[in-house]
Amino acid sequence: MDLLFLGTSSGIPTRARNVSGLALLENSGKGWYLIDCGEATQHQLLRTPLTLHGLRAICITHVHGDHCYGLPGLLASAGMARRQEPLDIIAPEGIEDWLRATFAMSRTGLPFELRFHAAESLGQWRTPQVRVEVAALSHRVPSYGYSFTEARPDPKLAIDRLERDNIPRGPLWGQLARGFDVEHEGRRLRSEMYLDFGRRPRRIVIGGDNDRPELLADTCRAAQVLVHEATYTQPAATAARDQFGHSTAAQVAAFAENVGLPNLVLTHFSARYQAKADGGFSIEDVRAEASAAYRGRLFLAQDFMRLHLDKDGELRPVTA
Amino acid sequence: MDLLFLGTSSGIPTRARNVSGLALLENSGKGWYLIDCGEATQHQLLRTPLTLHGLRAICITHVHGDHCYGLPGLLASAGMARRQEPLDIIAPEGIEDWLRATFAMSRTGLPFELRFHAAESLGQWRTPQVRVEVAALSHRVPSYGYSFTEARPDPKLAIDRLERDNIPRGPLWGQLARGFDVEHEGRRLRSEMYLDFGRRPRRIVIGGDNDRPELLADTCRAAQVLVHEATYTQPAATAARDQFGHSTAAQVAAFAENVGLPNLVLTHFSARYQAKADGGFSIEDVRAEASAAYRGRLFLAQDFMRLHLDKDGELRPVTA
Repeated sequence: MDLLFLGTSSGIPTRARNVSGLALLENSGKGWYLIDCGEATQHQLLRTPLTLHGLRAICITHVHGDHCYGLPGLLASAGMARRQEPLDIIAPEGIEDWLRATFAMSRTGLPFELRFHAAESLGQWRTPQVRVEVAALSHRVPSYGYSFTEARPDPKLAIDRLERDNIPRGPLWGQLARGFDVEHEGRRLRSEMYLDFGRRPRRIVIGGDNDRPELLADTCRAAQVLVHEATYTQPAATAARDQFGHSTAAQVAAFAENVGLPNLVLTHFSARYQAKADGGFSIEDVRAEASAAYRGRLFLAQDFMRLHLDKDGELRPVTA
Repeated sequence: MDLLFLGTSSGIPTRARNVSGLALLENSGKGWYLIDCGEATQHQLLRTPLTLHGLRAICITHVHGDHCYGLPGLLASAGMARRQEPLDIIAPEGIEDWLRATFAMSRTGLPFELRFHAAESLGQWRTPQVRVEVAALSHRVPSYGYSFTEARPDPKLAIDRLERDNIPRGPLWGQLARGFDVEHEGRRLRSEMYLDFGRRPRRIVIGGDNDRPELLADTCRAAQVLVHEATYTQPAATAARDQFGHSTAAQVAAFAENVGLPNLVLTHFSARYQAKADGGFSIEDVRAEASAAYRGRLFLAQDFMRLHLDKDGELRPVTA
């Protein structure tokens, strides 16, 4: 599983960072998931190997424009690229009506189906590759985090159980091995009943805008990676006397340390934090503040940064 | 008056060209007008000297997404930059409702007023610098062209008329000279009655998507520049058996030649026309086709190309 950051700026784009967008890539093949879709996410994709045909689902964390204004253009471009596969969109209520109103206004017809799932009542959503679950966060508007859990880590057929249940060796075993449920002599055989998994599943948690990281404590159990906003440093938040519903680097780092997360990726930085100190602010302030409270592996996201989570739960940069 | 191209691709962005956006700069100062606002127009602006504080008005040619999906993000960013000056938006009906629905969905409040003017019934709209008029075009949806005419080219006070009407020399003359109407002894004195203009006003016509350039014949009278889409070349349009409401380079060039336009700028190219021939198509095909039918000064727009129209009506590239 890989993460490829498409936008890491909070609120407004800068020359170096676009507004929010993050791709999560399946372990094999070209399938990927998009978490948030700020304006010009489709433009960022043009500079990656990802295609709109490989996109399996879009998850939107909340309705603020810097997290969703790129949806209409990205979907329209997928249509112009003649995508036909239905596309699942998991998003807060309000997004569906707005997208439909937008396409009505602009007279845009898509050649593929949009399947909406309200984040408010999702429970879980799954493909053969991943299981997606949602967690409610705290922000100025309803905001959600999404966890992506590998569905079938190194599956092996449980021969003993297959033989015990008199399931004949052959094509049926193959179906079950590939994750498909099958019918046999009037019984429905569930694939997962006849598979053993070789290791812990990989699990990545991606937060939306949120001023209470501790709301992700349950979701982060058994996760190897948390991607979370750190819009401000503590001194900046204190000076503003208002965090506007956001977290500081110190706050997220302390949470990650408390729950023993091995890998933490911070993102969604206020535009004041530049690569080089500008007016007293530098992105290195964010790193220093987080490092002081967190002993795991810390990453500060940049646009086009790609990170690979290996089977042992280690997260490392991929160079292009 | 300058033109600064922000997006010159038709339908979808490419790595070299964004979707439609064009800035027209006032002769002096930092004021400018935006014609069309495809997605990521605000991102393109980050690479120009233009600011959202200097923006005087936005004109939208039609409702297709590649001409307006950048509006919500650009306006939200103007708000975050604390713009307070009201902003005029001249656009087809439908845009206003959609923008208001978008801001309601994303809980976006702007600190400045939006003043909408329906293109369908505009007549004209003016500032002390320019007069904007609208012309109906032919496309799959209602589409409009906009002409920008210099309001006060090299103004000089008409002393003879001021003295004839017994208007006392002093502050009143100054007001009239700067283009302001004034009250005097119960009479309303209109600035333009007491000004002589030193030369023909500059006039630039900017078309929207359109498959009948000849609809701009009246609007192009007394204009020095036409900016018009040339989405396809003639062979491509013939092969597709449908121009989808667009013009070919040959068609626009023949029109410009017929009405004797001294300067023609083509834009809004299909993504198939690349800088270098790719699959048999090249942007040079567009140039060759237009050159064959037009003897004036021909430009093929590129993103960030800047052109200056001087007082003598000559259009030339500005290098940064």
